[in-house]
Amino acid sequence: MKLTKSLIAGAALTALPTLALAQDAAPGFDEIGPYIMTTLLFCMAGFLVFFMAAGFAMLEGGLVRSKNVTMQMTKNIALYSIAAIMYWLVGFNTMYPGDFNGYFAIGGQTVLDPVGVAAADAALDYASIGSDFFFQLVFVAATASIVSGALAERIKLWPFLIFVVVLTGLMYPISGSWKWGGGWLDAAGFQDFAGSTVVHSVGGWAALAGAIVLGPRLGKYKDGRVNPMPGSNLALATLGTFILWLGWFGFNGGSQLAMGTVGDVSDVSRIFANTNMAAAAGAVTALILTQVLYKKPDLTMVLNGALAGLVSITAEPLAPTLFGALWIGAIGGVIVVFTVPLLDKLKIDDVVGAIPVHLFAGIWGTIAVVFYNSDANLGTQLLGIISYGVFTFVASLVLWFILKAVMGIRVGEEEEITGLDMSELGMEAYPDFSKG
Amino acid sequence: MKLTKSLIAGAALTALPTLALAQDAAPGFDEIGPYIMTTLLFCMAGFLVFFMAAGFAMLEGGLVRSKNVTMQMTKNIALYSIAAIMYWLVGFNTMYPGDFNGYFAIGGQTVLDPVGVAAADAALDYASIGSDFFFQLVFVAATASIVSGALAERIKLWPFLIFVVVLTGLMYPISGSWKWGGGWLDAAGFQDFAGSTVVHSVGGWAALAGAIVLGPRLGKYKDGRVNPMPGSNLALATLGTFILWLGWFGFNGGSQLAMGTVGDVSDVSRIFANTNMAAAAGAVTALILTQVLYKKPDLTMVLNGALAGLVSITAEPLAPTLFGALWIGAIGGVIVVFTVPLLDKLKIDDVVGAIPVHLFAGIWGTIAVVFYNSDANLGTQLLGIISYGVFTFVASLVLWFILKAVMGIRVGEEEEITGLDMSELGMEAYPDFSKG
Amino acid sequence: MKLTKSLIAGAALTALPTLALAQDAAPGFDEIGPYIMTTLLFCMAGFLVFFMAAGFAMLEGGLVRSKNVTMQMTKNIALYSIAAIMYWLVGFNTMYPGDFNGYFAIGGQTVLDPVGVAAADAALDYASIGSDFFFQLVFVAATASIVSGALAERIKLWPFLIFVVVLTGLMYPISGSWKWGGGWLDAAGFQDFAGSTVVHSVGGWAALAGAIVLGPRLGKYKDGRVNPMPGSNLALATLGTFILWLGWFGFNGGSQLAMGTVGDVSDVSRIFANTNMAAAAGAVTALILTQVLYKKPDLTMVLNGALAGLVSITAEPLAPTLFGALWIGAIGGVIVVFTVPLLDKLKIDDVVGAIPVHLFAGIWGTIAVVFYNSDANLGTQLLGIISYGVFTFVASLVLWFILKAVMGIRVGEEEEITGLDMSELGMEAYPDFSKG
Repeated sequence: MKLTKSLIAGAALTALPTLALAQDAAPGFDEIGPYIMTTLLFCMAGFLVFFMAAGFAMLEGGLVRSKNVTMQMTKNIALYSIAAIMYWLVGFNTMYPGDFNGYFAIGGQTVLDPVGVAAADAALDYASIGSDFFFQLVFVAATASIVSGALAERIKLWPFLIFVVVLTGLMYPISGSWKWGGGWLDAAGFQDFAGSTVVHSVGGWAALAGAIVLGPRLGKYKDGRVNPMPGSNLALATLGTFILWLGWFGFNGGSQLAMGTVGDVSDVSRIFANTNMAAAAGAVTALILTQVLYKKPDLTMVLNGALAGLVSITAEPLAPTLFGALWIGAIGGVIVVFTVPLLDKLKIDDVVGAIPVHLFAGIWGTIAVVFYNSDANLGTQLLGIISYGVFTFVASLVLWFILKAVMGIRVGEEEEITGLDMSELGMEAYPDFSKG
Repeated sequence: MKLTKSLIAGAALTALPTLALAQDAAPGFDEIGPYIMTTLLFCMAGFLVFFMAAGFAMLEGGLVRSKNVTMQMTKNIALYSIAAIMYWLVGFNTMYPGDFNGYFAIGGQTVLDPVGVAAADAALDYASIGSDFFFQLVFVAATASIVSGALAERIKLWPFLIFVVVLTGLMYPISGSWKWGGGWLDAAGFQDFAGSTVVHSVGGWAALAGAIVLGPRLGKYKDGRVNPMPGSNLALATLGTFILWLGWFGFNGGSQLAMGTVGDVSDVSRIFANTNMAAAAGAVTALILTQVLYKKPDLTMVLNGALAGLVSITAEPLAPTLFGALWIGAIGGVIVVFTVPLLDKLKIDDVVGAIPVHLFAGIWGTIAVVFYNSDANLGTQLLGIISYGVFTFVASLVLWFILKAVMGIRVGEEEEITGLDMSELGMEAYPDFSKG
Repeated sequence: MKLTKSLIAGAALTALPTLALAQDAAPGFDEIGPYIMTTLLFCMAGFLVFFMAAGFAMLEGGLVRSKNVTMQMTKNIALYSIAAIMYWLVGFNTMYPGDFNGYFAIGGQTVLDPVGVAAADAALDYASIGSDFFFQLVFVAATASIVSGALAERIKLWPFLIFVVVLTGLMYPISGSWKWGGGWLDAAGFQDFAGSTVVHSVGGWAALAGAIVLGPRLGKYKDGRVNPMPGSNLALATLGTFILWLGWFGFNGGSQLAMGTVGDVSDVSRIFANTNMAAAAGAVTALILTQVLYKKPDLTMVLNGALAGLVSITAEPLAPTLFGALWIGAIGGVIVVFTVPLLDKLKIDDVVGAIPVHLFAGIWGTIAVVFYNSDANLGTQLLGIISYGVFTFVASLVLWFILKAVMGIRVGEEEEITGLDMSELGMEAYPDFSKG
């Protein structure tokens, strides 16, 4: 047998598990299996959702003009990093008060299980704290990513990042606790399996408030016409979409929150199949619709159609049949095709289509729960949608106004025309090619 | 303990697995472990193979000229989405007739296991239907991706997508059932572990038929010379290759179809090691060969060499030793270097080298099974190769001719020169840089 | 039930595991579970670390000028492939002498477990050889990737690849065995959980030696000024960083080397959380520092800050609290911001910042072990750092000088100015856009 790291070094504290277990009446799979499998599920789903940060970055980097790409990259890696820190500092323990924090209380920093936790000291009916924390953390980062896309090409870096601090440390955790922390909306029977509302529409509302306060990009709406500002790299945007689709298997599949029984692992696989179907249906619907409406298929609509399909199925990816996932996702695709121009009519400038995809399709997905989950009813779903909307939109609006008053949130006209990369960061993303 | 989503909301139907199991004489790992682990294998391998859709898109997007990149992205996301829908609608139940469908019958839409399936109702000696469906679905999409690369830069969008509908809904499932559905080639002893023939050469034959009917790109073969049309983004093509390589661990590893025993999980790891070795050998071989033959290493050959190594080992990634994987993959690399110019001599224009990689190396890999798998014999392997070839090539040829007659499959000369992005879609992939 | 590949074809040698196990007193999870879970951990962590090869390629491809991108891609896919072959040929059995090889002996090629290994013949207290080999193999490739970044834009292809042959086949395995092969540094109590020293600083030392022998790029240091040579694609560099971050969950998490007990899987999740935190802290620190020092946040510093955070936590990702991971990673970020200009002052031209990230932060991470791991002491950590440094730096220096004398390691002046892509490979990476 090959000697390797832990066997020699003992660094990993493993010390021949078979022998160790044999000594004290080895616990069977029924006892420790669910804990091990669910912890693994969180780690695996967690790294998939983590990678969505790259997906958002590539999608947004592909859809902005080349003169703003460095800034968009900077915002995306910074927002993920800030979310990670804030969620540890206050978010996780605000959102999941559990049995030792008061409701709404800020519970302080996250504390992990001790190294090499003994089975007797672990929550065997659940999973390790580290895995759960990591899994929840990557969700909050997704919420912040939604905002960065909508407000691209004109918002200053630092006010945006301050918004992210508050969003990820307070706003998201507070409203998240209403449902996932066992709060009043959960008690009322509101259903949102993986976060069409809790994550996506929250990001969408924050983005909408920001887009209104910030105003459209210079020249976007001029003389009653909508001036297209095409994305600089559609290969990158497509890559970003595929990465997000990949990450969504973790986003929805991991939200099963258990993988140690026949029923749970089967449910995870059901969710995979449904999630994939909804995305496919959203993409195909947007493809056909743009062909019919505009006589030319529109790739950016197809990409957003796939994403809208994913957001639509996120509130209930388990209960629907594959056909259910198909039509729920397809309506997501329809929503994107019709609401992207609608926002333009309202002169709300959403650079990447984040509001149609995450807010409008998020609302739709939350409503669609009632068709397949008998525990859901339309009234409670609407109550949840409105509650998250009012709270997030108002809180965001107030915060954006404060930031605007205190430090300004928008770059100067000249800076915007030059592009944020050179004016704010002094660094082009594509110095060898770009003509701006 | 931290309260989280399912514990509070009950959304995931988990309800404390430990306690639930304890009530009725907890099933041991020997009973439910294989089902859980294999379902997990399919989910994990499935998301890896899903990501190959992004790999193909990036590889192809990098190897076409910048004026056709938006179209290539559109085709790739559309083909994956169509494959997902068609395989649900007819493909899966056509391919795996199993015990309730007649042979060759179209069995209707895929039906998943019920939510929270009980152990007593699950096929404990296998895995959940959702996981198996998802895993098989991403394979069929790979087949369609192979076609899109070869026919790039000149085929119209819609005829291509109609071809994908038939390929993924009927052609691939029908021929796939011959081997993996337990059909006549399986009964005859044909061996194809993960699809050198069933997936890759099938895609290659369909691409070859298309390339012949479609004809080469304008100006590709002129005055007896082969006019190089260099790819627009070799960084993207390299990324695509790495993503495909990554996905192949799922492609081959998942084809073990079981992970719940010591033998099975060891075999999965054997497959990982062999798959990696074959790719490495294919890449190094192409690197050295192009240095020797042309005095300059050729990156696109190295990328295709790695892919050819992967295709070559796909028919039997388990049985060979690491040295076996090395030389089988190396021959794949040799095949690519010598057959890419060969196709050019025949004036068959394969934009990305899909036919050498997937068809020629696929044939080689299927033959190579006989060296390490004693259940295989050369005659039966050739029978399988020819059967898949004749069926797929003829069916594809007929379909391409019908599409050509009915709606035309090729864009006009002017459109081709302008590029498909502006002429067909009205949207450039790199509007800030491209000079075409 | 649906019939699928293995059930029909028997190709996978599974043969209904439940029944097979039932016959001879089914082994429980306590007996075979750890083997299965740990093998799975290695496969999963292995494919994540494999993907780091793509991360390095994209990071480096984004940070070099467009005229050298094809070369950088070629080097990256070639170095990975060579590492895979060399590590099989000599590396693995040199590094892990175990119980059948003499110390330091070259043990010949790696031999995998037999197909379908029986539980009785497997090392049930560990994992399958294939999974362990694959996991260790991707580590050695990472070491080589570090070198390619630092020496970009001027080193010839073949001497670089010969260096990779020696590095991955001999140098890394020999020094690696000191710690992970159970050698003298392990006996002395040196602690390096996942390789801040064994992997990262080794790569850094080899790169430093190369950068010194090779000299800076033409025009980099002129008239006492440092001439910036901006990277050609910061979107790609950002993607590469995210991919590396993703891969690092496998790099550190997999180094737990066990996942089959409650304690082990919890530790893996602890490592995930800590690894993520260190990266986030490194990124935020570099962001704030560059804002304060230069008044403009520097994206490349933020990317390298994240990577430095990751390298810093790699020597001990398990023991620290989340706050520990935060400050250890943050200091990694500080190190990058201050040592990148320092190298420039010394006229050591490190194109991508590999030496600050992997060597300097690697040293820091190895020292930082003493703060949270009571088994570590500063003296032994310094002994390890110095031993690895002296051995690798001297051996590399000698090898670089030999290569320089025998075949030359640097392209000609004209070639360098033209760019390596056209002069050495005759193939531009972005032929449709690039102006060089």
